[in-house]
Amino acid sequence: MTCSIARAVEMVGDRWTEMILREMFLGSRRFDELQRLTGASPHILSQRLKRLEAEDILTRNLYSERPPRHDYRLTEKGRDLWPVVVALKTWGDRWLDEGKSPPITLTHTTCGKTTEPYLACSACHEPIQAVTSKATISPDMAKERAAALGR
Amino acid sequence: MTCSIARAVEMVGDRWTEMILREMFLGSRRFDELQRLTGASPHILSQRLKRLEAEDILTRNLYSERPPRHDYRLTEKGRDLWPVVVALKTWGDRWLDEGKSPPITLTHTTCGKTTEPYLACSACHEPIQAVTSKATISPDMAKERAAALGR
Repeated sequence: MTCSIARAVEMVGDRWTEMILREMFLGSRRFDELQRLTGASPHILSQRLKRLEAEDILTRNLYSERPPRHDYRLTEKGRDLWPVVVALKTWGDRWLDEGKSPPITLTHTTCGKTTEPYLACSACHEPIQAVTSKATISPDMAKERAAALGR
Repeated sequence: MTCSIARAVEMVGDRWTEMILREMFLGSRRFDELQRLTGASPHILSQRLKRLEAEDILTRNLYSERPPRHDYRLTEKGRDLWPVVVALKTWGDRWLDEGKSPPITLTHTTCGKTTEPYLACSACHEPIQAVTSKATISPDMAKERAAALGR
């Protein structure tokens, strides 16, 4: 499977995983807090946390020795999922909330203003959208696709 | 469930759905093409397409009457998922591909350059990241959270 989109979804495209990430970006670190805020059962939460740890998206740390207590923190790989969570939030706020005010509002601490982040082009810094973008497929992926299409 | 992130994931956080969206952004419109390119079974593909149609993310159109043939097109709600797909691609390219060149490269047609889109602040247009953002929770969501935490 050449496509990195498909593999990324395999890793984080799950309701519970996304809710865990949301809570961690909001500052939660402890199992019981994550459990109450996501509404996941202990079994599901523990299974998802183990998977995220195995994928190096978060680390589990001992913060108290007696009694032994752990907390969870995002790694750089985990923190780098922020644009995915923000993109889902932006879409959900726009299309699923029918005129209600969004449950979470973002402020850009650098400028101090309320913000609705958008995608910008790394070359010219102007906004970029599906209609102003063109996708070029790598030779390896093109080969896979031609084979799939029987060409 | 107040959170729009969780509801958005319910709708598109599925490997097959994401692959269908990827293919539609790459220009595929026909069932057989989508089936070959995603590798989904006809049953799975048909089920996902029906769900996306019910959610108004795509429309199914008759393009030939004899024999009857349909194709699928993204609605505005569907096209608006582009930032989600791009965010997943960016993360996957960076963290899952270990130095390989990305399977899909994007060009910004407005400026003509190869681009790696990033999130910019709608107020100051500078880049925004998790560390330079602050989340404010709405009163309704805060109430839900306080109840979940038993406070």
